[in-house]
Amino acid sequence: MNNKAIGVFDSGIGGLTVYQALKKRLPQENIVYLGDTARLPYGSKSAQTIIRFSMENAVFLMEKQVKIIVVACNSASSYAVTHLQQSIEIPVIGVIEPGAEAVAKLNVRRIGVIGTTATIESNAYKNSILDKKPDAQIISQACPLFVPLVEEGWINHPATDLIIKEYLLPLKNKNIGALVLGCTHYPVLNPAIGRILGSEICLIDSAKTTADKVFSILSSLGWLNQPDHTGIDTFYVTDFPERFKKVGEIFLKRSIDEVICI
Amino acid sequence: MNNKAIGVFDSGIGGLTVYQALKKRLPQENIVYLGDTARLPYGSKSAQTIIRFSMENAVFLMEKQVKIIVVACNSASSYAVTHLQQSIEIPVIGVIEPGAEAVAKLNVRRIGVIGTTATIESNAYKNSILDKKPDAQIISQACPLFVPLVEEGWINHPATDLIIKEYLLPLKNKNIGALVLGCTHYPVLNPAIGRILGSEICLIDSAKTTADKVFSILSSLGWLNQPDHTGIDTFYVTDFPERFKKVGEIFLKRSIDEVICI
Repeated sequence: MNNKAIGVFDSGIGGLTVYQALKKRLPQENIVYLGDTARLPYGSKSAQTIIRFSMENAVFLMEKQVKIIVVACNSASSYAVTHLQQSIEIPVIGVIEPGAEAVAKLNVRRIGVIGTTATIESNAYKNSILDKKPDAQIISQACPLFVPLVEEGWINHPATDLIIKEYLLPLKNKNIGALVLGCTHYPVLNPAIGRILGSEICLIDSAKTTADKVFSILSSLGWLNQPDHTGIDTFYVTDFPERFKKVGEIFLKRSIDEVICI
Repeated sequence: MNNKAIGVFDSGIGGLTVYQALKKRLPQENIVYLGDTARLPYGSKSAQTIIRFSMENAVFLMEKQVKIIVVACNSASSYAVTHLQQSIEIPVIGVIEPGAEAVAKLNVRRIGVIGTTATIESNAYKNSILDKKPDAQIISQACPLFVPLVEEGWINHPATDLIIKEYLLPLKNKNIGALVLGCTHYPVLNPAIGRILGSEICLIDSAKTTADKVFSILSSLGWLNQPDHTGIDTFYVTDFPERFKKVGEIFLKRSIDEVICI
């Protein structure tokens, strides 16, 4: 298993924040990334459809002989991870559990959770945080306009600030101590969100904790690659490789060599 | 052919503006509407993918025995109509040609065209308007945030006004005399766009002209339904019938009885 790749899928490009955390934590690992750009976004779609798409993505990654699958999409993690774990023989890990663990460890009781409509309606974060911290008070808010804003590259725009205020000031007014960024696109908005919420609210995203979890699973199974290996990555998309490359640069702050359209 | 239905497809819900114009112009006709909500939006996707999805939608409508297919989506009309016309035996009509005809008739030379990234990059409106009015000056602008704003229902929101200004003031400053709303979602923003552009710029959408064209094709073929018939409509979606019903009300300003998920 050791030199097999880590499989990562997302509805599109947001999963690159998780990819980047994996690169940092596991530089020796090869990564196969699949962005389902022909059918994105997932966050406005039904549980049934998200599960079907996720299953198809997992089958593609299995054909690439990956040793673990990381569901780097909050909407897919909310609905499809249990289903995938039951259907697939290799380990499957989503981003909800790691994100919930990270926020549950903080010394705060009032916790805001934001995400796509699908993620918020699933209550996946709420249930997972309450499992770990039964006295937590969870205030959830779907923010469907954040993804299009990030994809349009409007990171510092007055309209973005107005939209953030509309979605997040009610959470601030309820005195949340931490905010879970329950969508892989949202960390790109961190500076703008910080400007509006102030520095006293801790922003949590799942990327780093997810990478830690992948490390611990692979290491416990003895499946880590040789430490002197430099990981080689392959990017697949179901549509529009040029756009993936272009918007990917906003996420990675570096260029991507090749993106293969399947 | 007479009592067969008119088939209409869109990537999702926006095509309801065209559906509504058809109802008004052709109240005696039955309509089968398909919204491909599992794979929406089309406007951020590639020509190849849009053509593939459109072909699949057309096949579904053909199975429902429709007598004509109306591509009620600007992105799909931009890329797929010629392809569909060549592959399908019944008439196929898109929204670009009717929209271009409507604006070309006006006594204005500087014409703004807005739409999704796919529609604008296709140059379909530009080419079609220049065909009809070779001295026209076309100024095009993709407005990828308009669709999510409409779907979020932010019709009268300060953020919406700011976003409209960002996209459209450069067109106003170039003294356009008319603006083609090259996306079936955009007419919902008419009041906000009018507020910002002022009443001297004429807003054109394709819905009414498309309905006129369908009328003239059916009538020239002798395929119109009996005039005393009251059209019966069926709505199909590929995902999330509840959301289609809910957002559909913003478009139709009335409730939709039943939406079938295929």
